[in-house]
Amino acid sequence: MKFLKPGFKHEDLKRIDEKDLPLLAEEVRAVITDTVKKNGGHLGSSLGVVELTIAMLRVFDPLRDRIIFDVGHQSYPYKILTDRFDSFNTLRLKDGISGFPRRNESPYDHFNTGHSSTSISAALGYAKARDLLHEKRNVIAFIGDAALINGLALEALNYVQETKTKLIIILNDNRHSISNRVGGFSTILAGLSGNTFYKRLKNFTRRKLGVKLSGIFERGRDFIKMILKPRNIFDQLGINYWGPFDGHDIKNAERMLELAKNYYQPVLLHFNTVKGKGLHEAETDPTKYHQVSPAGEKKSRTWSEAASSVAEELAMNDERIICFTAAMVTGVKLENFAREFPNRFFDVGIAESHMLTMAAGLAAGGMRPWVFIYSTFLQRAMDQLMHDIALQNLPVVIMVDRAGLSGSDGDTHQGLLDISWCRAIPNLEIYAPCDESSLRHAMLKASKRDGPTLIRYPRGSIPAENISPESEDAIVKIHEGSKWALLGYGSEVSIMIDTMNMAKREGIDVPGVYDVRRIKPLDMNALDDILNRYEVVCTLEESYMSGSLGEAVASRIAEGKYHVRLIRFGVPDVCVKHANQNQQRELYGLNAENVIEQYKHTNEE
Amino acid sequence: MKFLKPGFKHEDLKRIDEKDLPLLAEEVRAVITDTVKKNGGHLGSSLGVVELTIAMLRVFDPLRDRIIFDVGHQSYPYKILTDRFDSFNTLRLKDGISGFPRRNESPYDHFNTGHSSTSISAALGYAKARDLLHEKRNVIAFIGDAALINGLALEALNYVQETKTKLIIILNDNRHSISNRVGGFSTILAGLSGNTFYKRLKNFTRRKLGVKLSGIFERGRDFIKMILKPRNIFDQLGINYWGPFDGHDIKNAERMLELAKNYYQPVLLHFNTVKGKGLHEAETDPTKYHQVSPAGEKKSRTWSEAASSVAEELAMNDERIICFTAAMVTGVKLENFAREFPNRFFDVGIAESHMLTMAAGLAAGGMRPWVFIYSTFLQRAMDQLMHDIALQNLPVVIMVDRAGLSGSDGDTHQGLLDISWCRAIPNLEIYAPCDESSLRHAMLKASKRDGPTLIRYPRGSIPAENISPESEDAIVKIHEGSKWALLGYGSEVSIMIDTMNMAKREGIDVPGVYDVRRIKPLDMNALDDILNRYEVVCTLEESYMSGSLGEAVASRIAEGKYHVRLIRFGVPDVCVKHANQNQQRELYGLNAENVIEQYKHTNEE
Repeated sequence: MKFLKPGFKHEDLKRIDEKDLPLLAEEVRAVITDTVKKNGGHLGSSLGVVELTIAMLRVFDPLRDRIIFDVGHQSYPYKILTDRFDSFNTLRLKDGISGFPRRNESPYDHFNTGHSSTSISAALGYAKARDLLHEKRNVIAFIGDAALINGLALEALNYVQETKTKLIIILNDNRHSISNRVGGFSTILAGLSGNTFYKRLKNFTRRKLGVKLSGIFERGRDFIKMILKPRNIFDQLGINYWGPFDGHDIKNAERMLELAKNYYQPVLLHFNTVKGKGLHEAETDPTKYHQVSPAGEKKSRTWSEAASSVAEELAMNDERIICFTAAMVTGVKLENFAREFPNRFFDVGIAESHMLTMAAGLAAGGMRPWVFIYSTFLQRAMDQLMHDIALQNLPVVIMVDRAGLSGSDGDTHQGLLDISWCRAIPNLEIYAPCDESSLRHAMLKASKRDGPTLIRYPRGSIPAENISPESEDAIVKIHEGSKWALLGYGSEVSIMIDTMNMAKREGIDVPGVYDVRRIKPLDMNALDDILNRYEVVCTLEESYMSGSLGEAVASRIAEGKYHVRLIRFGVPDVCVKHANQNQQRELYGLNAENVIEQYKHTNEE
Repeated sequence: MKFLKPGFKHEDLKRIDEKDLPLLAEEVRAVITDTVKKNGGHLGSSLGVVELTIAMLRVFDPLRDRIIFDVGHQSYPYKILTDRFDSFNTLRLKDGISGFPRRNESPYDHFNTGHSSTSISAALGYAKARDLLHEKRNVIAFIGDAALINGLALEALNYVQETKTKLIIILNDNRHSISNRVGGFSTILAGLSGNTFYKRLKNFTRRKLGVKLSGIFERGRDFIKMILKPRNIFDQLGINYWGPFDGHDIKNAERMLELAKNYYQPVLLHFNTVKGKGLHEAETDPTKYHQVSPAGEKKSRTWSEAASSVAEELAMNDERIICFTAAMVTGVKLENFAREFPNRFFDVGIAESHMLTMAAGLAAGGMRPWVFIYSTFLQRAMDQLMHDIALQNLPVVIMVDRAGLSGSDGDTHQGLLDISWCRAIPNLEIYAPCDESSLRHAMLKASKRDGPTLIRYPRGSIPAENISPESEDAIVKIHEGSKWALLGYGSEVSIMIDTMNMAKREGIDVPGVYDVRRIKPLDMNALDDILNRYEVVCTLEESYMSGSLGEAVASRIAEGKYHVRLIRFGVPDVCVKHANQNQQRELYGLNAENVIEQYKHTNEE
């Protein structure tokens, strides 16, 4: 490496000669590719914005100015170039740097992200704060074309002109969502990208922008606008649209950013970039290389694969079944379903709210929609689940993937709220299977129910063999113990079995083990039997504790006449940092050692 | 009344001569105005769409076709004309007809609404269901201009072209949100309304459309498109834009609807209407007459008034304080704040998600944003509360109005989820004051906190005198009792005091009364004292029971060594029907009689 050496600081960037910047870009790419191949992470998006990031960092002051990345998985080059080159090898590792912008990680990070489409709203907030506090800062929202079609970003675009403030929106248009981008707005963007005004602008900037910029602005703001292009949707929304430009031409990008910085009104700069740029395989298969698993991670059958294969089976026998995803076709493993049932598969793009309400419409119209969504992204559609699906008691099935502790993506991506939030929703039934057999049972029941059903399952591998007996029960006894019992669901069923085995080995009371497959409604008869039979009952779950199974069991105990003591295991009321799933489980005591220790401790009291 | 007589049925509409339709419209208006003045309800929106509704009902078959109203507060004319004239005098009353479309009320209602901007997504769902089931139906989304700028509707607009299905969107453009409409899209609509192609189209339709419609389509689909106007945003999104037309000209509206029905592609018909049409005072002050209170409802000081006046005081002394509303400036009573601090007040339109993320940006930028929002609409911004505000621990204050049972708007508008959902959010503190003094305390604490705070308060009157002692405590003892204690917050504090007084009168054990002002974090020391002191503890709350105070107390009991029995009072796991607030409280046993009865019952066990 010629430029990226240990101790590389943001200021070093200014000392690099303009002609050497492409070489720097190559070095940044090499660091990203090497690290992501080792640690896992988001590859394509970051490779695509290396030049744009260099240009931004030369035009703006990343400490004083507020560069806000949307989603944030494209922030690796920014991290490397803002004093985090030395620590970049810890990317996404426990106690290492995050895969997303984090304000507590660096003074260069100004807004935490992870979910999509927040950047324009946040930038408007920062810009108004600057105005009201009479500060001098540039505020920049850096957003991809796929994120732009989410309702949150569209609401923000609509609001820009009301704020009468200055901000710069950089539209990083790589013509890809996580998979393909969707909808009418993408057609509009494609139309803009094809327009010939680009060439005129390029010539114009080549000719003029070598000279002093301020002069141009004094002489004719409107001239620049006029020459660029006819009014399009952004102009109509009160945002000056400039572009499209080549996002890999650092020199030109710098010029346009400089122009936008000095312009007196909101500007949207449209850059075309290539997702995965510089890495042949990522350029040619951008969906596959959007996110990469760490080297050496074993490729056993995942929960997502199991869920989608059952969905295919069910769809084969019921023509009313259709499947939805919001830009996560590979994540939730619906590729094969999409191929088998092209007319019954919808990828709505990053539009979770719309997805659930459209599913409600389909259900009202006589179909049986199945929505596949990550737990963390379901947070985006809670009102639609309540208002459109549950209140109408419509037969929509919500397949909640990545539920529970979800690992290295960090606090923005944990699936810890679905149980707490959804238990309070009327008409909804909630299942949390622990293996393929109970997953299948839950999906079969959901397919027959005339009302909404939610099925949550973890990230990662499904047990290779079933661990809980074949059963129609809502609470399934795996082992009858003495004195104490363990109640849990999903990933925790394995941990409960571990605990039982450990107790046997250690010669202490062997706990009863109960697989609570249906969280709502709870089977109160089965629960009462357990509460009457044991002295101590433990609940285990990968969920925040408020509103989850533990509190439901607690309510039954506190309202009844039981002589039983409860110990609840779950995720405490904190933001969960990135680490792998097992490290996170250890951290919160979701393991056999801790369960046994807490039981002993309670017995000694 | 000449046409609207007892027993009026939808079929009767077809027997009315075209020239008499304006008279029918006047009769519908009279029925609406009379009923709303008696029962309360939404006035302006319904008065504005009488002619459009008549036209729709003549062109479409409301049983076979799917007319989906957005929000639904404009559905009164539709209800009157679809077999509910006889029952319309029960509008919004307990066991009467709902103020919104309800599928279980009538076969003419096809999708339940209440919240805004769901109609296009739902219509897309219905349309795809029709295609897949090979049915013949028209699907119509009827949406106002204010609802169109919400992210959900924009996501749906973006998705229309992907579905390759036929639907009709009727844009009812009255140039008003609940208050004024907001943002760039409204400028675009205004531009469309002003365009002269309207006149050309009008002439065109006058000349041609007397003749057989099908002929025109055979002869030249593109000719019609061409003549109408240049391509605008809707056309760019793959939706044929036709308009604008006069929404009060029934004859012309029918023609255009007929055209749209027979057209082969998605059409958006843009109608200009006058909100409050036909009622002078409602036309001139549409915001005031958007929603009308029932006659005779006493006008005592409301919670909203109290909250906004404290906000004004705080803002006077802290220049960082700014206030947000999402199209509810009159509902949350921020009119005066907006006048006093015009630069520190934002009405973002119906864009709750954007509001919270923009508030997060302002807080990150050094300001102290206060967001005023109804509990039911906070459901629209849960991810923004979690992902953008709470995970970053930003000092945003969420003022949750209409929390708890909210009365006549029905199941879509109850505020029963805020406690259950928000208790699970890390970093968030939650207050639920019961009177003006505790409201002020909570707001003062929130203003000083370097993290997010949520304050929830009920709909309606605030107690004229404070009912709970002045105190800094999180749990305030109002009365020390014997044997049993009542714990509750908000509206339930009055009920607890009633219970105490009733117990005194009846000579049974007088309960301790505890005002739990801060729901999160709970003051565990104070709670432990109570649990150790009494034999029975009751929790009372206007919230779903899952995840709320009762479960928090239950968890403490079940995990500890207390000899105390819990009884939880709250709203059960059902959809709450419309009725007034006190009727709803009776229904769920939130009153002194029931609390005492349950206590006696527990003692007898």
